[in-house]
Amino acid sequence: MEARRWLQGVDFAADRPLINVSQAAPVDPPPQALRQAMADAALHNVEAHLYGPVLGLPELRAELAGVTARHYGGTVTPAQVCITSGCNQAFAAAIATLCAEGDEVILPTPWYFNHKMWLDMSGVSAIPLATEADLLPDPDRAAALITSRTRAIAMVTPNNPGGVEYPAELVQAFFDLARRHGIALILDETYRDFDSRSGPPHALFQDPDWADTLIHLYSFSKAYRLTGHRVGAMLTSETRLAEAEKFLDTVAICPAQLGQHAALWGMRNLGQWLAGERDEILARRAAITEHFPRLEPSGWKLLGLGGYFAYLQHPFAQSAATLAPELVRSAGILCLPGTMFHPQGDDGGARELRIAFANLDAPGIGVLFDRLESLRQG
Amino acid sequence: MEARRWLQGVDFAADRPLINVSQAAPVDPPPQALRQAMADAALHNVEAHLYGPVLGLPELRAELAGVTARHYGGTVTPAQVCITSGCNQAFAAAIATLCAEGDEVILPTPWYFNHKMWLDMSGVSAIPLATEADLLPDPDRAAALITSRTRAIAMVTPNNPGGVEYPAELVQAFFDLARRHGIALILDETYRDFDSRSGPPHALFQDPDWADTLIHLYSFSKAYRLTGHRVGAMLTSETRLAEAEKFLDTVAICPAQLGQHAALWGMRNLGQWLAGERDEILARRAAITEHFPRLEPSGWKLLGLGGYFAYLQHPFAQSAATLAPELVRSAGILCLPGTMFHPQGDDGGARELRIAFANLDAPGIGVLFDRLESLRQG
Repeated sequence: MEARRWLQGVDFAADRPLINVSQAAPVDPPPQALRQAMADAALHNVEAHLYGPVLGLPELRAELAGVTARHYGGTVTPAQVCITSGCNQAFAAAIATLCAEGDEVILPTPWYFNHKMWLDMSGVSAIPLATEADLLPDPDRAAALITSRTRAIAMVTPNNPGGVEYPAELVQAFFDLARRHGIALILDETYRDFDSRSGPPHALFQDPDWADTLIHLYSFSKAYRLTGHRVGAMLTSETRLAEAEKFLDTVAICPAQLGQHAALWGMRNLGQWLAGERDEILARRAAITEHFPRLEPSGWKLLGLGGYFAYLQHPFAQSAATLAPELVRSAGILCLPGTMFHPQGDDGGARELRIAFANLDAPGIGVLFDRLESLRQG
Repeated sequence: MEARRWLQGVDFAADRPLINVSQAAPVDPPPQALRQAMADAALHNVEAHLYGPVLGLPELRAELAGVTARHYGGTVTPAQVCITSGCNQAFAAAIATLCAEGDEVILPTPWYFNHKMWLDMSGVSAIPLATEADLLPDPDRAAALITSRTRAIAMVTPNNPGGVEYPAELVQAFFDLARRHGIALILDETYRDFDSRSGPPHALFQDPDWADTLIHLYSFSKAYRLTGHRVGAMLTSETRLAEAEKFLDTVAICPAQLGQHAALWGMRNLGQWLAGERDEILARRAAITEHFPRLEPSGWKLLGLGGYFAYLQHPFAQSAATLAPELVRSAGILCLPGTMFHPQGDDGGARELRIAFANLDAPGIGVLFDRLESLRQG
């Protein structure tokens, strides 16, 4: 919301339009076939207009259980899946089952701002876990932060904002750490459909008792461009879902039905289309890798790259908090400063910028780098 | 959810089907023209697939502001309206702006169960305010319950579960009480489109400073049969909405877009249709009034009638908590016991049953009373 305010009163020349790399979600609507499927549901499916089960459409829970089991080579039952009104609501529901006021949740920094916001709102302390130079969190550092009030470690992979894809062994180490301490590992894999690695990104679902420790979050918004329809998911134990059901029943009653039908239709029919989407995102990612060396002489560093994001270290003396709004005028670029993803008050993120490149095609990425390259050194 | 379990394993003869009067929402889909409008939006409106503003579609906020101002003869600006993913979420957002753990909210009993649930989940104490024989709460009794931790009084009119339409003067008295104590009056008017009275049901919106004290909740689910699309609203001060925005941003990001477009289309095009719906509900209400005297010789009493609900006092020795599940087998009637709407542990509601008559046509109401009349005295 703050970033949108930076645009107020700024005019962009027709031959130098704004490059908006602030958005962590698709800006195009779903493919026409999916829109047609939603229209058909609106016209002909009576159930799609009525209340549905609190934990979501049974067919969608079953479909996601099956897809997840296959993708990760593990075992997931439909009863271990619930559908939520977006992935943030899944996080909120997870926290409702885990935490009371005064409890603590460990978040690697740079963190996903919405996780931090919800913890604040719930009276839960977000404990920042500083990451290493490669933006990866260290399990030993995390272990040192665990107290009697710690209820979970929450991680995002591929990471928002950092872009980095957490190695399978690292995810496993955090899972083992969480299990050892009897706390939960919340793993938000919103961007997993655009992971550059082939095969399962981790082996957690292969553990027969994964659901005792793991709370896996997923979003249909990115894969099928359903942002406006609010469909996410949480995969965990049946016991925890029974607890989450009380929260979801009061805060939502049920996820919006047409969005759920759209997600179901997408999973069943858009596999090939989604593979093409992934190819395109990976091509854009490759364009970042190709162009980035042009910035190295001026002192820029590429800290992380993956999912929707390139996470950059800028070479200027000023903080990203003031640099980012200035870039709107000076370079016609809207991106978010690293300071948004760190605890307020410390210096974290002052040299960092998040570039959400996924909505910019390869030529557009070339222009982005032209503009960054031409910035005068501060 | 519990009531659905009572149906398990019970067979109903074809000539004696279940009469389901447990549901407080329409069980039919929206009219075909509205479904067509949703299909058109899915096919042709790109924006309807993307994230929208946290506080809702600006056109819908403006439309509801206008309709509310006209209906209540007062002043409401679009900036005083936010759209939520259903009316329960509006309540949750209101509480998030009002209360910390340990605070108190006064609820007249029998209460709306979802309000009580959300307060429990937020660590807020629901303070029961016993109502009089006519199911109306007394402001003086309420005043005696106000403490330094009280943040709001929350009322539902027309009442769920009690059916009773709160007189304008009573609503005003509670508003004045709340203002005098610097607390909020939350007024949930989900069923206001089916109020039997003509004209504004209260004068609160005519107070130029209504928004300092009043939090008005509304639902599009009942008027336009949009239950599955999750569209509700909260009308209050801009300041409070700015606070609510933080809650809604994390728990929902935005209300589902197609539902909002449906609500907007409904408000703009279904006024006449809705008037017909109201007529039909009032005809069903009249059928209750017509048939009820048949039960009086057996000791039944009609405690409240309005909106979707008739609230009955039964004549049996046993508690409604055991009577209601038995009625499924003995009478083929599914209704909810008054005990669900009172604090657990006290005797409240033991003699009460909620009959949600709105989905039952007049002949069906005749059959309902046949079955109630034929029950043997316990």
